Amino acid sequence: MGVQRAAVIDMGSNSFRLVVYGYAEEDHWQHVDEIREAVRVGEGMGDDGRLRDEPMDRAVRVAKVFSSFCRASGIDDVTAVATSSIRDAPNGPELLYRIREEAHLEARVLSEQEEARYGYIAIANTTTLRDGYGFDIGGGSVQVMRIEDRALRRAGSWPLGAVRMSERFLPDGDEASGKDLKALRKHVRSVLEREEWIKPGDPARAAGIGGTIRNLASAAEKSAGLPQTDAQGFELTREALDELIDELAELPPSKRGGVPGIKPDRGDVILGGAVVLAELMDHCGAESVETTSAGLREGVFFERFLTDRDPPLVEDVRRASVLNLARRYQDNLQHPRHVAELSLEIYDGLYSAGLTESNGEDRELLWAACLLHDIGTAVDYDDHHKHSRYLILNAGLPGFSPREVELIALIARYHRKGDPDASELGPLKRKRDDERLALLSGVIRLAEQLERSRDGSVASVSLTAPNGTVLLHPKLRGDASVAIWSARRNADLLARAIDRNVEIES
Amino acid sequence: MGVQRAAVIDMGSNSFRLVVYGYAEEDHWQHVDEIREAVRVGEGMGDDGRLRDEPMDRAVRVAKVFSSFCRASGIDDVTAVATSSIRDAPNGPELLYRIREEAHLEARVLSEQEEARYGYIAIANTTTLRDGYGFDIGGGSVQVMRIEDRALRRAGSWPLGAVRMSERFLPDGDEASGKDLKALRKHVRSVLEREEWIKPGDPARAAGIGGTIRNLASAAEKSAGLPQTDAQGFELTREALDELIDELAELPPSKRGGVPGIKPDRGDVILGGAVVLAELMDHCGAESVETTSAGLREGVFFERFLTDRDPPLVEDVRRASVLNLARRYQDNLQHPRHVAELSLEIYDGLYSAGLTESNGEDRELLWAACLLHDIGTAVDYDDHHKHSRYLILNAGLPGFSPREVELIALIARYHRKGDPDASELGPLKRKRDDERLALLSGVIRLAEQLERSRDGSVASVSLTAPNGTVLLHPKLRGDASVAIWSARRNADLLARAIDRNVEIES
Repeated sequence: MGVQRAAVIDMGSNSFRLVVYGYAEEDHWQHVDEIREAVRVGEGMGDDGRLRDEPMDRAVRVAKVFSSFCRASGIDDVTAVATSSIRDAPNGPELLYRIREEAHLEARVLSEQEEARYGYIAIANTTTLRDGYGFDIGGGSVQVMRIEDRALRRAGSWPLGAVRMSERFLPDGDEASGKDLKALRKHVRSVLEREEWIKPGDPARAAGIGGTIRNLASAAEKSAGLPQTDAQGFELTREALDELIDELAELPPSKRGGVPGIKPDRGDVILGGAVVLAELMDHCGAESVETTSAGLREGVFFERFLTDRDPPLVEDVRRASVLNLARRYQDNLQHPRHVAELSLEIYDGLYSAGLTESNGEDRELLWAACLLHDIGTAVDYDDHHKHSRYLILNAGLPGFSPREVELIALIARYHRKGDPDASELGPLKRKRDDERLALLSGVIRLAEQLERSRDGSVASVSLTAPNGTVLLHPKLRGDASVAIWSARRNADLLARAIDRNVEIES
Repeated sequence: MGVQRAAVIDMGSNSFRLVVYGYAEEDHWQHVDEIREAVRVGEGMGDDGRLRDEPMDRAVRVAKVFSSFCRASGIDDVTAVATSSIRDAPNGPELLYRIREEAHLEARVLSEQEEARYGYIAIANTTTLRDGYGFDIGGGSVQVMRIEDRALRRAGSWPLGAVRMSERFLPDGDEASGKDLKALRKHVRSVLEREEWIKPGDPARAAGIGGTIRNLASAAEKSAGLPQTDAQGFELTREALDELIDELAELPPSKRGGVPGIKPDRGDVILGGAVVLAELMDHCGAESVETTSAGLREGVFFERFLTDRDPPLVEDVRRASVLNLARRYQDNLQHPRHVAELSLEIYDGLYSAGLTESNGEDRELLWAACLLHDIGTAVDYDDHHKHSRYLILNAGLPGFSPREVELIALIARYHRKGDPDASELGPLKRKRDDERLALLSGVIRLAEQLERSRDGSVASVSLTAPNGTVLLHPKLRGDASVAIWSARRNADLLARAIDRNVEIES
């Protein structure tokens, strides 16, 4: 399957961003390149809403850079979109004309509804939100989407973006006073109160995109001591947000970019955005917001990737993430799929025999780890179990929480060698994780060996538990000598996890 | 270019090992799978030199496992070789007959000269040894090769392997006494003294392969607190070896496998091997031995990989390693090659302008880092500079020392973002490394930006140094606006490293 490349250029109010995607349609996709520049095209905009000369020059210069990058890299499929700052400015068309003439780039101005739709597509494809509200806090505008059963029911857009609100309500050089924040809050509330369709729901779930929310989530992750801080899958609570607002308000704008997790060039507008988010959450009754590293640009990209679907949504976000990662590093999924089948047969068999509890989440994590257990061979065969963990943690799995990603990575890591140790979860460790991890690692390790020769010679496996022993009954298809021999030598981890002898019939 | 697979099965005296190589002829190669089993085929062998029943049964069982693994994995190209234990045993043919009949595996018995030749090929392709001695300490025999200008001049083989010597001279269950060690040393010496062609040379360099030497090197690396301990490129000194011998002799054989770096199933024979190595080094006048993670099996494999050369040697080990790694992760080397050209132009220009010292080693490390700086995008675009470092450290670079590999990895890591910090070298850090790393990272970062659009729009670059400023003169080929723009924004690291303003003409 040929890998194609598509570039999306997002001309936002805070920054312009070029992202290049490599993808095989309906199969897998990934970022392959990116240039981001804090253009601040709406900077210094007065009440007339006109773009100023200097920001316009910056915008044209960066557009030229992006355009020649695409030309030079041989990327023909380039989609450039402009949002609120340019859309709303009376002289926006002038900027677009200059970008067309000087940078040879045809940018499409998204309407409010289109902007909300792409935000919705990004959210629906990279978070677990099925019902609730989607937020997109940009530099210029804010979009709220009401999502029901993963469909976009309604959306609204208002000029409440982080740059605009910070410039209008917060002091340039000082800490923000309670009074400043109050005035900002009041303004946001007055706008939202006119929208009757936004109301506290049940479940009042929310998911958010855009640099503001992503930076706030990263800051909260940093402050919680989490190892990965790319915001993907993190639940930013209202409480953590309040703590961040307090911390940021006590600093002058120039210092806010020094708060770990906040990008330096976003420091001066992050507080405005944070307050807007707090108001949005309160207004929707959301205790937390699920964050994602995806954005509007991914919404645009998904139209390319999932051409046959309208709206372009993957069927199941978590499943799609796992398969995407598995396919990125492996041409053939026959072996990992079979290890997954055998693992789930053992896992379910242990439950049926009354030896373990069982739950859907663990079952899904086990499946994911099986699909991904060998991707580390893309790094090197030696220690590939450790490399699989590294790749899972670093490439990420949209739809899974940071804790779930760490668990999947650890199960994959322990598919061979070593004794699992849940303390590697660090601050994400919970009670009984040692037992969970030992069980799931024990299962995958045994299943991997039953499929050691990678030929499905053990077609399936069932188990019985007579007299304090667990007896596996492999159903053979051809010569399974490798599989049986290997499995017998690798049953001890599972045996310890369930405190039973584990034997394999031949 | 199609990737082929070849399996090599090495039936050694200590262990049987199946290694699967993925490769594109003359282009790149890597391990893709491996099964290792401590068969100990020569165990319990008496003065009659006959293989015993139980070890023979084990050998047949493992051969069956390997054979069905290859069949199941669809690997047709399988080369099985047997060495000293089987070659020398009067009933070796019986074992080979059983392996052929029961495991359907045709194993070729290597003569002493063939065994030495494959060891030599492995050494010549994965170490920097040009002139000196190659050692291969197996379980049954020891091979010494006299290498001149990378050619094999002479070789000898004697039954001085680690298993044989341990069984014959060292006590089964106790610590080894000074007397035991002395008797062993005397025996080894008496054998070597008959070989007039082995004598202290100048330079008395040595390189070694085989599990014994690899385990000893790993143990020495562990004890030095090195981060990577796969023995590749490590110089095991005579002094460190003596310390290990002392440590091992004080432990009973059953505990020696617990010494960090020593494989548990090798613990009982490692001391015998260590003493043999010490004698070999003394006899050749070698202060240290360069170790490699390659072995006889790679020697066999290289005949497949380099079909057009006899002997099958890469021209330059270090260069070949870098290109091998670069090609494993990248289809097209145009961009990294051009970054390398620009980097070396800047590096040489700074030297010509009298602003820096220059040396061949740094120049080579810079070149290597340039070729490899983007391989991390195979993991993920985000943080790909960090992933490049991870891949370099984990996949390794035969021919470079652990310190050089760490330096290359760090230069690649700092081709974008962050301030280089030589303390990341840990125990490998030396004086003035901070300055070196800042300079080399500053150069690659600037060169990367001059090639930001990946189109060679900056064809080359020269520099002058008027009035305390360094002025870069790019020679343009087409639209270089991206390159110039990007380079100007990324010159500060180099500027700080050389304490000069760095400006780029357009």
